[in-house]
Amino acid sequence: MNPMQILVIGGVAAGASFAARARRLDETAKITLIERGNDVSFANCGLPYHIGGEIPVRDVLAVQTPASLKAMLNVDARTRCEAIRIDRDNKRVLVRNLSEQTEEWISYDKLMLAPGARPRIPAIAGVNNPRIHTLRNLSDMDRIIADTAPGMNAVVIGAGFIGLETAEQLHRKGLKVKIVQKGPHVLPQVDAKMAIPLENALAGHGIELFLNDEVTQFEDSGKILSCRLASGKTLKAEIVILSIGIEPDTGLARDADLKLGKRGHIVVNEFMQTSDPDIYAAGDAVETTDRFFGGPVSVALGGPANRQGRVAADHLFLREKARPYPGSLGTAIVRVFDVAAGSTGWTENRLKAAGRQYGITTVNDFHHASYFPGTEMLTLTILWDPDTGILLGAEAVGTQGVDKRLDVLATAITAKMTVEDICHLELAYAPPFGSAKDVVNIAGFAACNQRDGLVRTVSRLPANAGVQIIDVRGKPVADASPVPGAVNIPMTVLRDNLDRIDRTRPVVTVCALGKNSYFASRVLKQNGFDVSSLAGGLSTLIK
Amino acid sequence: MNPMQILVIGGVAAGASFAARARRLDETAKITLIERGNDVSFANCGLPYHIGGEIPVRDVLAVQTPASLKAMLNVDARTRCEAIRIDRDNKRVLVRNLSEQTEEWISYDKLMLAPGARPRIPAIAGVNNPRIHTLRNLSDMDRIIADTAPGMNAVVIGAGFIGLETAEQLHRKGLKVKIVQKGPHVLPQVDAKMAIPLENALAGHGIELFLNDEVTQFEDSGKILSCRLASGKTLKAEIVILSIGIEPDTGLARDADLKLGKRGHIVVNEFMQTSDPDIYAAGDAVETTDRFFGGPVSVALGGPANRQGRVAADHLFLREKARPYPGSLGTAIVRVFDVAAGSTGWTENRLKAAGRQYGITTVNDFHHASYFPGTEMLTLTILWDPDTGILLGAEAVGTQGVDKRLDVLATAITAKMTVEDICHLELAYAPPFGSAKDVVNIAGFAACNQRDGLVRTVSRLPANAGVQIIDVRGKPVADASPVPGAVNIPMTVLRDNLDRIDRTRPVVTVCALGKNSYFASRVLKQNGFDVSSLAGGLSTLIK
Ligand SMILES: Cc1cc2nc3c(=O)[nH]c(=O)nc-3n(C[C@H](O)[C@H](O)[C@H](O)COP(=O)(O)OP(=O)(O)OC[C@H]3O[C@@H](n4cnc5c(N)ncnc54)[C@H](O)[C@@H]3O)c2cc1C
Ligand SMILES: Cc1cc2nc3c(=O)[nH]c(=O)nc-3n(C[C@H](O)[C@H](O)[C@H](O)COP(=O)(O)OP(=O)(O)OC[C@H]3O[C@@H](n4cnc5c(N)ncnc54)[C@H](O)[C@@H]3O)c2cc1C
Ligand SMILES: CC(C)(COP(=O)(O)OP(=O)(O)OC[C@H]1O[C@@H](n2cnc3c(N)ncnc32)[C@H](O)[C@@H]1OP(=O)(O)O)[C@@H](O)C(=O)NCCC(=O)NCCS
Ligand SMILES: CC(C)(COP(=O)(O)OP(=O)(O)OC[C@H]1O[C@@H](n2cnc3c(N)ncnc32)[C@H](O)[C@@H]1OP(=O)(O)O)[C@@H](O)C(=O)NCCC(=O)NCCS
Repeated sequence: MNPMQILVIGGVAAGASFAARARRLDETAKITLIERGNDVSFANCGLPYHIGGEIPVRDVLAVQTPASLKAMLNVDARTRCEAIRIDRDNKRVLVRNLSEQTEEWISYDKLMLAPGARPRIPAIAGVNNPRIHTLRNLSDMDRIIADTAPGMNAVVIGAGFIGLETAEQLHRKGLKVKIVQKGPHVLPQVDAKMAIPLENALAGHGIELFLNDEVTQFEDSGKILSCRLASGKTLKAEIVILSIGIEPDTGLARDADLKLGKRGHIVVNEFMQTSDPDIYAAGDAVETTDRFFGGPVSVALGGPANRQGRVAADHLFLREKARPYPGSLGTAIVRVFDVAAGSTGWTENRLKAAGRQYGITTVNDFHHASYFPGTEMLTLTILWDPDTGILLGAEAVGTQGVDKRLDVLATAITAKMTVEDICHLELAYAPPFGSAKDVVNIAGFAACNQRDGLVRTVSRLPANAGVQIIDVRGKPVADASPVPGAVNIPMTVLRDNLDRIDRTRPVVTVCALGKNSYFASRVLKQNGFDVSSLAGGLSTLIK
Repeated sequence: MNPMQILVIGGVAAGASFAARARRLDETAKITLIERGNDVSFANCGLPYHIGGEIPVRDVLAVQTPASLKAMLNVDARTRCEAIRIDRDNKRVLVRNLSEQTEEWISYDKLMLAPGARPRIPAIAGVNNPRIHTLRNLSDMDRIIADTAPGMNAVVIGAGFIGLETAEQLHRKGLKVKIVQKGPHVLPQVDAKMAIPLENALAGHGIELFLNDEVTQFEDSGKILSCRLASGKTLKAEIVILSIGIEPDTGLARDADLKLGKRGHIVVNEFMQTSDPDIYAAGDAVETTDRFFGGPVSVALGGPANRQGRVAADHLFLREKARPYPGSLGTAIVRVFDVAAGSTGWTENRLKAAGRQYGITTVNDFHHASYFPGTEMLTLTILWDPDTGILLGAEAVGTQGVDKRLDVLATAITAKMTVEDICHLELAYAPPFGSAKDVVNIAGFAACNQRDGLVRTVSRLPANAGVQIIDVRGKPVADASPVPGAVNIPMTVLRDNLDRIDRTRPVVTVCALGKNSYFASRVLKQNGFDVSSLAGGLSTLIK
């Protein structure tokens, strides 16, 4: 019997992972991997960090090379080779060698499509300009590095994950960086409140933010590029980074009449098979299902891409032992200077956009024991189903321990845990690592308190002057940063000063973090007041 | 109606948490808290760190004081007051004021017993000596600080969590520290292999370890204390720390005829009620149920104590909304210099001792992207049910990210996830925080590979000379630290050198971390060899 011919198009995360797993499952198959770019298996996610020199050595980004794939995996990896046509009837792919400008048909028994995604280019006048860059692979990175020098002006358009990382690293290289963001805050994935610490970090490093704005035109004077904004402002820059999102690179799949989703992603089943069972697809190019609610979703991240590639190989060789891809949750994180922010599952913005009902709980607490040196505050929001208390998603921001809480909550969400369940997660506690009641537990407590009717929360200060604001912080703090219209009655003397509060008007209690205001609201509620507590405290409202 | 009289015995973790939650649920109750020691609500877990000065300010350890409990919670907290008798018939407790040497009966409607545990004192000749200390509260800590000075010799007896932390901090203070440990390795909770990095860290700081040894006698010469060991050795010290474990402080409960467990813990139901429904108990003094298998268990840690206290208060006031305590898992972690180690759920030692069947998987991987600066290796062991693949427990050791993996796995174990489920946990990945395939995913992959018959692992090098050891590390490494009896065939050239391996004899493949040896075992297996892979690699076997 002839060995099975496996052809892989796209040689980075999904494609290389598929090839690697396929080889481990089958020593005899002939595995050929076709990559249009100069490199296979590189660390896309590390690209921004070499621009700023935080990853000092370029070589570490090339996780594998064609030579190492050959030696380790007996995979025939060909770079600078582009698949330009799939002939499904004859099960072959036309491949153009970009170096030698030759073409050849390569036959397959099984084909893996892992072409990934490409940066979205807006239809703006002047956008095709050598000063305007996108960042997807090592060659893009090399060009950005070559075209930048300390002191230059850079404009980053789009403040998602890649835009933020690139802005930080350009600043690290010594450029003067400005960010233009269409929406009202950076990191549109998370709620405005969670983005504030990121914006503070950017501002703290002198990176200027242009929010609720967008570029309408680029003008090249030869020496400098002018970015005209919708607001009428003009930003001048030697270099512009476009990071406004990506789109799946699925022209080849479309031409081959494979089924595509609404936004152009390749549709696959739970074993990553496309509409042609001999063709698998994985990674940024595909649409899988939402792990929580079902329904099509595309999560363009490294973890899903790698694991989807592996699932496809398992389906091909492990038969009945193969396990389906369970869908994507959407867990993501970004570091901006010393602040980390991220989310898992359904964010508040996504729930709102989908018109779903949700409960929301925001708490602040220390990332490890408050009394242990180096303790840092983090803010955690959990979103839950108001009927069942089942967790839907979480958002977190802070300088330490953000990744840990997102991972715990990603696990809890995957397990369909409720807010009650996370009250009693038994997490590792010694002073350098956590707290006896971790912030995840606290979020569970606070959510249960809401569900049990022990507390009513508001997420912003009341606009209505009829509502009394009682600031229960200590007097020195309250005096130093007073809340407009609030009466200061510190929590420690609240019980003795109830007569200072008007029983006929609603009350909102506020404090720095949302904890003492909750305590105060319990006192007031049991004393007959109509009271709400400002969730998350004042700290989260302050720019 | 008279306000409810609530009396709390023991004012630190469980007791104070109960009182705090009770107050938030009921403003009217009269809450009295009796504490024998000088302090309420202090951070026991921080005590070791003030000895070495890592927590420089003593005050931060007093999380609350009687005055702050009064102000914040309207709780009447009385220190230096000891409950000496419970009169259940008349629902009152005899309390002795240790300062004034007076006694008084205090009545209760509901009583909370949170007396905690006390250090175990072995019956050894000479053990009652002012140079011999235990560490449980601030007064103990103050005495240890007063009695130590740089240059002194200290012997720490018992290398569990508290012993290790105290040894580290005495070293930090400049003492010459020796540790005596009865068992074959430090941190008896985890497997020997996982303890090696801790032992290396201790040795690296000049802390001498006396394993498989124990003190049989103390002799005080006046100027120095001699600890005679079973091995015949004698260790001389100015100060000795006894940290060989704890026992529940439940004499009062016993005298009151409350039901106790086999090892003297107070037996409670899932709402923390003792055999007397008007008496609750929580914390180190109680026996709850094992969260996984059921059955009585006592997990003497801060998290369970705090949450148990809260559950009891909920039961008292929230009625049908109260949720039961779900049992304890046993999640613990310790830091020793730069190494962290811990476990969650059923450890290998515990499974062995209980005679339960288990599957075991050990992997090593980087704590965040391998190409990102500062990446550190960690070792993760997962234990699982061989029939169902359901996770039973996990152990982890490393310098970074150990707490995160334990927390994720604690959550997964709580959710009764299988090794298949953790393959597809979607954890937060950006280069500073994780990897596209986190070590938790890798552990899932490796366990599935075992279950699917793709690999057979061994946990130590074969003793039988008939087994061929194939070392697949690169030649320079293999030459520098050869494995006795092994043949070196680097993974990269394995496929071309199969004829160097004897097909008639079993093979064990080895490498540094267990990854390449797995890759090699796949090649050999598919080529007809009888092959096993050394799980976790050589790194975990090296002292
Ligand atoms: C700057 C940057 C930072 C990122 N940071 C993170 C992060 O922190 N965390 C995270 O989880 N994810 C991150 N990602 C996303 C992650 O890299 C992608 O999700 C992942 O690489 C997708 O894998 P893939 O195999 O589907 O596609 P890709 O990795 O894009 O690989 C597809 C490859 O296919 C090739 N190809 C396409 N068409 C053809 C063809 N016709 N013939 C031959 N070859 C073809 C392309 O040249 C490309 O190299 C980042 C991405 C970028 C660009
Ligand atoms: C040095 C040290 C380090 C630790 N490190 C950690 C760690 O890193 N992580 C972790 O999770 N846990 C740690 N622990 C354990 C944790 O502190 C305990 O699990 C927790 O404090 C138990 O709470 P408790 O309320 O049951 O008992 P305790 O905190 O011990 O409080 C009980 C109190 O009751 C008082 N009492 C007893 N009998 C009477 C009586 N008859 N009348 C009046 N008062 C009485 C005692 O004086 C005592 O103060 C550590 C403990 C110590 C000692
Ligand atoms: C380099 C690349 C081809 C590697 O593929 P891979 O060999 O499957 O991945 P890894 O090197 O992580 O190894 C994982 C394999 O080793 C096994 N493994 C890892 N550590 C192990 C250990 N200590 N013991 C036993 N097995 C181990 C895993 O189980 C897995 O094998 P399996 O899939 O057969 O179960 C692919 O991941 C890649 O191209 N990465 C770079 C690109 C990328 O991911 N970009 C996006 C993010 S930056
Ligand atoms: C000090 C002590 C009495 C505090 O008890 P406590 O008030 O229940 O605990 P905390 O101060 O952590 O506050 C937790 C409460 O605040 C709420 N909370 C905390 N942060 C909040 C936030 N940002 N928003 C809303 N609510 C918040 C929690 O929901 C919880 O209230 P609940 O139990 O009514 O739901 C007790 O924990 C103690 O004695 N600790 C020290 C001793 C100890 O634990 N030792 C062992 C470990 S070192």
